[in-house]
Amino acid sequence: MISLKSLLPILGWAPTYSKTEAQSDLVAALIVTIMLVPQSLAYAMLAGLPPQVGLYASILPLLAYAVFGTSRALAVGPVAVVSLMTAAAVGHVAAPGSAEYLTAAITLAFLSGLVLLAMSVLRLGFMANFLSHPVISGFITASGLLIATSQVKHILGIKADGDTLPELMSGLYAGLGGINPYTLVIGILATGFLFWTRRQLKPLLLAQGLRPRVADLIGKAGPVAAIVLSILAVVGFGLADKGVRIVGDIPAGLPPFALPSFDLGLWQQLLVPAVLISLVGFVESVSIAQTLAAKRRQRIVPNQELTALGLSNVASALSGGYPVTGGFARSVVNFDAGAETPLAGAFTAAGILAATVFLTPLFRFLPQAVLAATIIVAVLSLVDLGAIKRTWAYSKPDFAAMAVTILTVLLVGVEAGITAGVSLSLMLFLWRTSRPHMAIVGQMPGTEHFRNVDRHDVITEPGILSIRVDESLYFANARALEDAIYDRIADQPLLKHVILMCPAVNAIDASALESLEAIAHRLNSAGIGFHLSEVKGPVMDALKRSDFTAHFKGQIFLSQFDAVKSLTCPPKSNATPAAAHGIAAFGPVG
Amino acid sequence: MISLKSLLPILGWAPTYSKTEAQSDLVAALIVTIMLVPQSLAYAMLAGLPPQVGLYASILPLLAYAVFGTSRALAVGPVAVVSLMTAAAVGHVAAPGSAEYLTAAITLAFLSGLVLLAMSVLRLGFMANFLSHPVISGFITASGLLIATSQVKHILGIKADGDTLPELMSGLYAGLGGINPYTLVIGILATGFLFWTRRQLKPLLLAQGLRPRVADLIGKAGPVAAIVLSILAVVGFGLADKGVRIVGDIPAGLPPFALPSFDLGLWQQLLVPAVLISLVGFVESVSIAQTLAAKRRQRIVPNQELTALGLSNVASALSGGYPVTGGFARSVVNFDAGAETPLAGAFTAAGILAATVFLTPLFRFLPQAVLAATIIVAVLSLVDLGAIKRTWAYSKPDFAAMAVTILTVLLVGVEAGITAGVSLSLMLFLWRTSRPHMAIVGQMPGTEHFRNVDRHDVITEPGILSIRVDESLYFANARALEDAIYDRIADQPLLKHVILMCPAVNAIDASALESLEAIAHRLNSAGIGFHLSEVKGPVMDALKRSDFTAHFKGQIFLSQFDAVKSLTCPPKSNATPAAAHGIAAFGPVG
Repeated sequence: MISLKSLLPILGWAPTYSKTEAQSDLVAALIVTIMLVPQSLAYAMLAGLPPQVGLYASILPLLAYAVFGTSRALAVGPVAVVSLMTAAAVGHVAAPGSAEYLTAAITLAFLSGLVLLAMSVLRLGFMANFLSHPVISGFITASGLLIATSQVKHILGIKADGDTLPELMSGLYAGLGGINPYTLVIGILATGFLFWTRRQLKPLLLAQGLRPRVADLIGKAGPVAAIVLSILAVVGFGLADKGVRIVGDIPAGLPPFALPSFDLGLWQQLLVPAVLISLVGFVESVSIAQTLAAKRRQRIVPNQELTALGLSNVASALSGGYPVTGGFARSVVNFDAGAETPLAGAFTAAGILAATVFLTPLFRFLPQAVLAATIIVAVLSLVDLGAIKRTWAYSKPDFAAMAVTILTVLLVGVEAGITAGVSLSLMLFLWRTSRPHMAIVGQMPGTEHFRNVDRHDVITEPGILSIRVDESLYFANARALEDAIYDRIADQPLLKHVILMCPAVNAIDASALESLEAIAHRLNSAGIGFHLSEVKGPVMDALKRSDFTAHFKGQIFLSQFDAVKSLTCPPKSNATPAAAHGIAAFGPVG
Repeated sequence: MISLKSLLPILGWAPTYSKTEAQSDLVAALIVTIMLVPQSLAYAMLAGLPPQVGLYASILPLLAYAVFGTSRALAVGPVAVVSLMTAAAVGHVAAPGSAEYLTAAITLAFLSGLVLLAMSVLRLGFMANFLSHPVISGFITASGLLIATSQVKHILGIKADGDTLPELMSGLYAGLGGINPYTLVIGILATGFLFWTRRQLKPLLLAQGLRPRVADLIGKAGPVAAIVLSILAVVGFGLADKGVRIVGDIPAGLPPFALPSFDLGLWQQLLVPAVLISLVGFVESVSIAQTLAAKRRQRIVPNQELTALGLSNVASALSGGYPVTGGFARSVVNFDAGAETPLAGAFTAAGILAATVFLTPLFRFLPQAVLAATIIVAVLSLVDLGAIKRTWAYSKPDFAAMAVTILTVLLVGVEAGITAGVSLSLMLFLWRTSRPHMAIVGQMPGTEHFRNVDRHDVITEPGILSIRVDESLYFANARALEDAIYDRIADQPLLKHVILMCPAVNAIDASALESLEAIAHRLNSAGIGFHLSEVKGPVMDALKRSDFTAHFKGQIFLSQFDAVKSLTCPPKSNATPAAAHGIAAFGPVG
């Protein structure tokens, strides 16, 4: 069943790789490399790791994804949210800056890789479906706000610690006295410049008559310009001696070969974060990959993506990196720049490798404030306040799950936030299904269609009560069904038949089956017939496996129309089958 | 809204209480008292508590329930499963036999009472619905087996400890050498005698021509006879000196006024067990109450039951008792003996109080083996192996939840068992809803009814694909819906319209709404129309609150029949509305 080509998607495109594709891929790789180098340094700083670790995490993972991934444009590497989650997880087990902290981050990447691979082998990709859109959207918005706030200290040039929004705010407030004016100027200039290049430079260039692709390229080079200018300023004015914190020495050279810790205690502490990082990373990555694939009518295989991301993380760990996933901005840039195949990713990896070996001495005087500005500008684009408003308007339970996710991320932490959001959204779903909507229905005049008596002008037969239950019947709502039916028959002394219309009943479990038996028993002893209509095939199959049909004294009708017709005109009458088709008024025609 | 009568159900029957009712209640109380005294001693022993604690727990709780309960026949007191759960919970925090153990049991009763009262105030009675029948049935069967096994040591006269089935078995095996022959003889005789009185005595007496009520009364007196005979044997043959373990001194007198511990650490340790005991006790109690109420067309108010059971547990705690709930055997006996009102419970309480004050010295020489026999005979009647078979035949997921509950109770413990069962049944439900059943449907010839093309001989229109999705659309299945639709349209180049038939869609959440938008967008760009039919009122209301309808280019039809008709015969044609009613073959009639 499983072909080599599905295990190694590279075999799908490599044999027919053309020169045109190579050109497109090379151009895309150049642009992405220019974008990724500063971003990798910045995200490593966000994760509390030495800057070169961000570069290491951007090389081998890209290669691994190029071989095993099914998306042709996805770019894998360190991303903001996963960097924040890494900082939160590793911060619990080791002190930032220590050797143990680095080892824990590497181990976390390794564990995430194993979790993703295990999910792939066990076909658990569907687990990601339990992260609802509002929870993901709330999680990313809140993480973006938290990350941006955590970077403000670098802009101000002060020291401040904290993991939650209140802690970060009070840390900033306490440190206000120690603001370094030089850092502040650099930070504000860099942030403003980056926002400007992101939002306004491209339209300006286009208005000047530049070709779109060139305008785009110059726009994307904004961070590079900020970096070059700020390094020149630091060197030129000797700002490092005036309290502007710089990146400092970055060891040049190839990524090291690293091994994760095999300390079981550490694994135990990191397992839950690794699962959460895997799930969040997988959802983020697959969403991006599917969005881009849809534009070119390509296809993403989620389960293969688990394998590819798993191997990317293992590759990251073995080369001294930390957890990675597909990133939104870089993938879109890669796609827009014309990447045709995953080889663009491999070329990018080569570009970053070259930067790691040759360019790191250049970054020595780079102010941390500029990296912070890069992060702030990147993550604020993730904040989607409009989604909050739209969700509020559409669905209060969805909004509740989103709000709880946002507040928990901001006030408690990222892991607690995602856990609370998922738990609440599942509980709300269960709560809703435990209180099914039920409607008394009647026939729409002139049709065979039955709808809610409260919403439509319908015909009902005296002596027959037709109830439609709008939910699968299972343990959580079995009792509610009994109560609802007993309530509705209580004030109807002339009732002869109750028909439970089941078009929305997709399953009846053992608990609900007992409730149906109880209802039938109770109605029958009160002299009322209890019938079912529009029971679906799979449900009927299950009922036949039980002894329900043997005991059941009522009838099971194919359609509600048949049910009402048969119970009002007993079959022994002369009515022909044609009466079923709405022409009874014309008299027998059969 | 809330009347005094609904808060105090006693006001519903007390004002019209008659002499006839009083006679019935007194007779029922006498029979139940005779049954309850040995049972209370036995269940206290099962819970690891001094025997008189079982008596204390059978007095005030009965009075509290008489005032606040809505069932007229329910008898509240110590029951087997809750006694086992008490032993498991309290055994974690104190050594059996110590003063701390007793305090912890009292505190557990108090906490259970508070949990039940909190559930009542917060209207959380619905939580009990999340315990499915197979999980409860499996839990009770496994608990029965565990309890019976735990009592075998008393029959053998050996010492053996253990909480799980393997521990209990190996304990029994290790102790086999120390069997006390006198105890063994008493134990086997008592067990055999009790089984015989339970199963065969009543039919035998009836065959001898006794009146049913007298036969029943004599049958119920079996345990009393066993107790009297065994006490006489112990005293007559001096068996206490020959190693037969006896109940020993039971302090005579009124129940003490007791206070629970207010140690927060202890509360924390007991909170989860208290919640589980409350839920299990509530479910068991309400099931019994509803079964009995249905027989006499009375009504149980679940929320008021929470209050009544909560106050019963608080009353138990304050009078030195342990957690209580409505018991099956005693309630049935009470009902069968003719109890008319909850006053029967109050009379029973008076009877047990009298026994506590005057009769306890008589029980000094009662062999523990006879109490163990009482428990074994009682709990083995709870074991329902037929339910396992029926569940297997009907539903594999239900069976899985049941089997996991049974195995976890036997191998790990009662709390783990109920937690595992509930979690698994919820996960299986979520898993099922995350993989909705979908069917391509066509028109049943001669009707307006649409059914699965794979199950029925139906008519389909070329160029129109009608898909019915059999589940509410929510985050867990939104992606599956997209994939399923893309898969089904992939090999249909001539397709013009896709109709999603939604009679079983009871809700569409924000995630699924995005998926619907994505599907519409994708189909429209491929030149295929995407329409909905039979969208329910509440779902339509929600869609109207979003901007979905503004963007949606397809149509939303009231019925699937309308949809197909309208898409095959464009509305500008001369077909009259009558065509909708199946009489098109007769020509226009409008």
